[in-house]
Amino acid sequence: MFSEAVKKAISSLSRLPGIGPRQAARISVYLARLSPARLEEFIDSVSGLKSVSVCPRCFFLNQTNGGSLCSICADSSRDSYTVAVVEKETDLISLEKSGRFRGRYLVIGDLRRSGEFEEWQHERLASFRRQIGELTSGGKFKEIILAINPTSFGDLGAVILAREFSPLAERLTRLGRGLPTGGEIEFADADTLAAALDNRR
Amino acid sequence: MFSEAVKKAISSLSRLPGIGPRQAARISVYLARLSPARLEEFIDSVSGLKSVSVCPRCFFLNQTNGGSLCSICADSSRDSYTVAVVEKETDLISLEKSGRFRGRYLVIGDLRRSGEFEEWQHERLASFRRQIGELTSGGKFKEIILAINPTSFGDLGAVILAREFSPLAERLTRLGRGLPTGGEIEFADADTLAAALDNRR
Repeated sequence: MFSEAVKKAISSLSRLPGIGPRQAARISVYLARLSPARLEEFIDSVSGLKSVSVCPRCFFLNQTNGGSLCSICADSSRDSYTVAVVEKETDLISLEKSGRFRGRYLVIGDLRRSGEFEEWQHERLASFRRQIGELTSGGKFKEIILAINPTSFGDLGAVILAREFSPLAERLTRLGRGLPTGGEIEFADADTLAAALDNRR
Repeated sequence: MFSEAVKKAISSLSRLPGIGPRQAARISVYLARLSPARLEEFIDSVSGLKSVSVCPRCFFLNQTNGGSLCSICADSSRDSYTVAVVEKETDLISLEKSGRFRGRYLVIGDLRRSGEFEEWQHERLASFRRQIGELTSGGKFKEIILAINPTSFGDLGAVILAREFSPLAERLTRLGRGLPTGGEIEFADADTLAAALDNRR
């Protein structure tokens, strides 16, 4: 029923994370009905992402092209020997917003259910090992925090990551577990409460 | 934390229907990390929507530019005197997929909570009235189906639409209510069951 152009847009949009074919259709209709100027504006904003590259050290998104470090890695006041390993860029953003972490990051990318790394994830690991060589003259980092989601899938991923990272740091940690601020004891699950008891202070 | 280009894309994407700022961030990161060729492909597919215009009769999306009718309106085997009024293009698609309707459509656009029409919706109504004049030499259509969602909001909208459309057709109807195919009596709400009893046959 939809014309070729609309169908193509629907198929493209439904490949985006979290967007199903029905929402893709809704968005395509919305975009097709925008005025030419506003559709152009939308396209421009997406095209702007072409200028985004990746930091050669932490692999976070980086505005400046050509292999220069991102603002976090370039910040000499931060602790180079404490590294938080995150799956997603948005996890990094959330940790930064907490204002509590003054180390650096490694964006390792989404862990696969199979437990295997993708080719580019192997490259990130290899690059990370080289960084240790350069920064510590063959030693180890002070601490690596596996900042992976506290879900059963994340726990599995953390086990796999621990294999890679435990030889690279004196301490290997994960984020603390317990009651989230604003959470209610009544509605907390047993695991969370057990962790909250273990970590009481 | 995100660079300007990423922030701009996030703000653009979060204006799309059904996409919040968090998902917009996730999609922006996803797009920024696509290879240049695949990002270009995505942009092309969205740019293709520029060629999409609107059918001057039913206001459904139309591939061909320049005021020609869409394939439904141009199909002379369809009944021009029975018109289904739909809010959304996707509602039209769903009705077409049922294969049961051989009339034409009017896409009136999303009804607002205030019950008022937007300027462009008034234009569609005016255009619809002109069509009646041209097609029936001042008479009325056979039937207008208000194919609006059977929700309390949709019921309200249908009342408002009925005011506009009841003078324009011999019969003004809405879609039948009852149990959806595959639905279970046990889980049906009271309203649906009441309608199913009323409409039993």
